[in-house]
Amino acid sequence: MQTPWEYRYAHRTQRMESSVIREILKLTAQPDVISFAGGLPAPKVFPVKEFQDASNYVLENFGPQALQYSTTEGHLPLREMISRHTARYSSEISSENILITSGSQQALDFIGRLFINRGDYIVVESPTYLGALQAWDAYGAQYIPVRADENGMIVDELEAALRFGPKFIYILPNFQNPSGSTLSLERRKKLVELADKYGVPIVEDDPYGQLRYEGEHIPSVVSLDDKFHGQNNGHYSGNVIYISTFSKLLAPGLRLAWVIAPPEVIRKLVLTKQAADLHTSSFNQYLAYEVAKGGFLDEHIKVIRATYKERRDVMIEMMEELFPSGVTWRKPQGGMFLWGILPQGMDSAEVLKRAVEKKVAFVPGAPFHPNGGGKNTMRLNFSYSDPDTIREGVARLGTTLKELIKEAV
Amino acid sequence: MQTPWEYRYAHRTQRMESSVIREILKLTAQPDVISFAGGLPAPKVFPVKEFQDASNYVLENFGPQALQYSTTEGHLPLREMISRHTARYSSEISSENILITSGSQQALDFIGRLFINRGDYIVVESPTYLGALQAWDAYGAQYIPVRADENGMIVDELEAALRFGPKFIYILPNFQNPSGSTLSLERRKKLVELADKYGVPIVEDDPYGQLRYEGEHIPSVVSLDDKFHGQNNGHYSGNVIYISTFSKLLAPGLRLAWVIAPPEVIRKLVLTKQAADLHTSSFNQYLAYEVAKGGFLDEHIKVIRATYKERRDVMIEMMEELFPSGVTWRKPQGGMFLWGILPQGMDSAEVLKRAVEKKVAFVPGAPFHPNGGGKNTMRLNFSYSDPDTIREGVARLGTTLKELIKEAV
Repeated sequence: MQTPWEYRYAHRTQRMESSVIREILKLTAQPDVISFAGGLPAPKVFPVKEFQDASNYVLENFGPQALQYSTTEGHLPLREMISRHTARYSSEISSENILITSGSQQALDFIGRLFINRGDYIVVESPTYLGALQAWDAYGAQYIPVRADENGMIVDELEAALRFGPKFIYILPNFQNPSGSTLSLERRKKLVELADKYGVPIVEDDPYGQLRYEGEHIPSVVSLDDKFHGQNNGHYSGNVIYISTFSKLLAPGLRLAWVIAPPEVIRKLVLTKQAADLHTSSFNQYLAYEVAKGGFLDEHIKVIRATYKERRDVMIEMMEELFPSGVTWRKPQGGMFLWGILPQGMDSAEVLKRAVEKKVAFVPGAPFHPNGGGKNTMRLNFSYSDPDTIREGVARLGTTLKELIKEAV
Repeated sequence: MQTPWEYRYAHRTQRMESSVIREILKLTAQPDVISFAGGLPAPKVFPVKEFQDASNYVLENFGPQALQYSTTEGHLPLREMISRHTARYSSEISSENILITSGSQQALDFIGRLFINRGDYIVVESPTYLGALQAWDAYGAQYIPVRADENGMIVDELEAALRFGPKFIYILPNFQNPSGSTLSLERRKKLVELADKYGVPIVEDDPYGQLRYEGEHIPSVVSLDDKFHGQNNGHYSGNVIYISTFSKLLAPGLRLAWVIAPPEVIRKLVLTKQAADLHTSSFNQYLAYEVAKGGFLDEHIKVIRATYKERRDVMIEMMEELFPSGVTWRKPQGGMFLWGILPQGMDSAEVLKRAVEKKVAFVPGAPFHPNGGGKNTMRLNFSYSDPDTIREGVARLGTTLKELIKEAV
């Protein structure tokens, strides 16, 4: 007889479904659709030649090791390189503070697995990163959203949320996905103090920190926390779990990210990873180390910044020229996303349907708001498309918006 | 203040700990210890040159795609290659039957996540694969062990276990890890019938199926199930979830495995993977496809078989010569492991402690028995060490066993 599979699935799968948005966005796979929907790096900045040199070098010199099983923690030279790199921007961390994961999404998943009991509350910015909600929904998380503006989470409203006893606070301080906002230094310091006061850990997700196109670098939350606690004797042992990734600096196809946390948390995450996938590709870790070890990233990041800054500027210039009045946006100081705000009462999901007919796509903002709202917001990616494509796409979107606003009057 | 991390962890982490065995085995990392403990392929069979050619070809011709984000299901040409490969050995499956995972361990984890509610029963062979227990413990699984002999699970004892209403049956039919046993054709057929009768799915874990050194290939459980159900119209839609891996055919450092299941189960696994790590390394999938596409694997597998057969034979020859009477073992027809059986009352964990002093290691058998027992059993890996090292290691182990048996008298 046929196996009735749907009666076999576990409770935790019940919130797991392909979203309506994802279904609409499948339409954007057609080659003639200009998509501002994804979060892809520009392929032209992938250092293909450097990867070729690195893979030849690694296979010639370390073939048997790079192709073999390896440790769950990650390739030691890579972890040591990350710890040196981190020390330049913030405080001293050791390789015992680091776990290599198969992309940031896996780090988010492991944090959910390690901390979240069904029904636990997580404090998030609203809007917040969709991938984190997707990962933590699987563990039965509930969310306490705290409002955010162009300077990130409104930390004055955080204290009320902390009194609900959340498991942790999740924050993307730099050029946030989706809203592009950056948490101010003052708010970062207040965040660290409040988290300490209530004994609630912070998860700091920082995929874009290096992709700043203007303004001054602001110290990471983990480094501010380290100074606040002042307990660093070679290892970081504070209140923050920090995530970053090679996806935006080298290439996402490698699936390489890292977590920085107190050694006791790293040890638990290592056990989690052992049961989940043993370890991240040894070969890819060797490759990333070879490409990055000689300081290549410093130069390469300049190329990425110049490329994305131009694209951001072209997008904004075109929006100023072609979007109808009443539609506004925030200018992000870095990252990959622009946040658009439509007139109140307008639904960006409806706009998307019409936009796809005109062969242009974006992501409606509502799904980034875990407890509802944000229907009149939209996320536009500017990193993937070249300037001419951005011009054409914004023109199509401008026409769509003008038509819809005219019809609504 | 210090963050009290241990009070933050979720319930599911409570069974998660580094085992005593793992602690003992850490001692074996010393270079002068001969380890039969791991499950590593021999580095000498890694096709390093082929990987080098493939990575040059992939980066020259598909750099931007191979380094970019890709689909959760996996690289389509690779999935199509796996479906053609599977058709040679068994029945027709389509690419919709296939998900690429980051190693078999991830496939086991996803199956646990998709199916297991806390307290659910899983039918397993006893002994069974430790990695599966580790993955499913995280989801609160309980186990119903069914006894096994040199022909695998004693299927006559399965029916009683099925009446407990387990979520699924887990089986490693070929050269099982740890016991080396192979499930006979007759038992496979009976297994398929019983699973259908009780409506209980089968998870077939087959990392070593291609590594047969003697005897005839026995059809996979998934292919027998497909014939039994007779509902294949281009897609497999039966009662089995099948797992295999490139770790033993190409290289484990790539972290590449695959799942074959009915399309509706694959769709659920895809959603699971989306939340867990987005997708498996695009670059590694391109690499594996390039290395394997021209029929290379057919020739390469012959090399692996010849290498491991020699090592198995050397190990058995030495055991016959040097092990004290009362110690027996099973000769596996393939795979990577020999299963040793000590006299009743002897504890292989105690033997390991003494063996490590003599600079040789193995894995005690007890942890492979989910509900206890098996203290007098041990798993010896023969794939990793070269023949001379195997000779020396078995000699050391023989001396250890003789001493301990003498002391016990």
